[in-house]
Amino acid sequence: MFSGAQISLYPMTDDFVGVILGSLGALDPYRDRLRIETDDISTLVIGVPEVLFPAMRDLFVAAAGSGKHCVLSAAISRGCPGEPDDPICHTPQLAGPLAPLEERKAQALLAVENTPPTGPIVAAQFSLYTMGIDQHMDEIYGCIDFLKNSGVFEKSKNFCTKLRGDAGAIFATLHEAFVRFGPPNGHVTIDLTVSANSPTTL
Amino acid sequence: MFSGAQISLYPMTDDFVGVILGSLGALDPYRDRLRIETDDISTLVIGVPEVLFPAMRDLFVAAAGSGKHCVLSAAISRGCPGEPDDPICHTPQLAGPLAPLEERKAQALLAVENTPPTGPIVAAQFSLYTMGIDQHMDEIYGCIDFLKNSGVFEKSKNFCTKLRGDAGAIFATLHEAFVRFGPPNGHVTIDLTVSANSPTTL
Repeated sequence: MFSGAQISLYPMTDDFVGVILGSLGALDPYRDRLRIETDDISTLVIGVPEVLFPAMRDLFVAAAGSGKHCVLSAAISRGCPGEPDDPICHTPQLAGPLAPLEERKAQALLAVENTPPTGPIVAAQFSLYTMGIDQHMDEIYGCIDFLKNSGVFEKSKNFCTKLRGDAGAIFATLHEAFVRFGPPNGHVTIDLTVSANSPTTL
Repeated sequence: MFSGAQISLYPMTDDFVGVILGSLGALDPYRDRLRIETDDISTLVIGVPEVLFPAMRDLFVAAAGSGKHCVLSAAISRGCPGEPDDPICHTPQLAGPLAPLEERKAQALLAVENTPPTGPIVAAQFSLYTMGIDQHMDEIYGCIDFLKNSGVFEKSKNFCTKLRGDAGAIFATLHEAFVRFGPPNGHVTIDLTVSANSPTTL
């Protein structure tokens, strides 16, 4: 199994470099469990989902704390057949057979309910893709059903679902969507956008 | 068939609203063939790929012309079984049976070779996802093979491929990747990032 994300942070300010560099310290508590590589377009973060999502959350909350309009964009992936197995990605969360959909939805809701708030209210939009399986839309519809009951659902849009709420609940919801839908050892990806401090909040 | 994209433009400047508003005129030549809806997180653009990709190109080239570090991020989709058929998305490009992979690679290369340059050099990074089919990696590896010969290939990264070159060739390459790989009536998506004027070009 291989899991991780290509992450980019976009602060809409002349001082975007300062906001980015000032946020990176938020990753320090996670660095021993992640492999991180940066180039001019994104930062690769490799690790298990239960470390990856809190790390993204804390990075984004730190950037949003600048008060500037900030966006985090990420291509998140697990189980891609083209990637090597990596010990840093081993997790009991992604093992065993695929449990019944209703059971997984209930587990996902419970996990989000038990997540403490972090403070800032953010908007998020994402698409979940499950590959290499028939009936992939069953998994996607199951996930959408969970999202509608997550407490942070805002609306369905073409190609994606929009969430709004506390950053803690938002990233917990994204984490659950990522690990509970699609087979545990399957190829699943998320195309994610998270936004804070937008001047055009609708 | 339904095809389109959720598009966001991120100018890394205090005047991000001015750069965005100043770029929108670039969409004018395409507006009669697109359906466009905006909210606080992205702009939905519905239409056929042969209009969508040039429209994204011209929008991004206009924004990059500001000289500011700008990023365009898009979730591009065709054939999603959850979306309604729409006459504005009908195109002969996405019809008929799936041709042999080698034939499609050759057609894609020819289309990129015949694309005139637009001027600015940009970096792009994207993932192609084909869903609801077995052996989805065959299509993805076929696409990567095309990309390596496209003239704008920079490197393979985990989860994605990175391109660099003239914006004309870049968006032509993205268009070909989107329409030539995966079945013509299949569910195919791209998670795209395009970047210009980065201070950290490597």
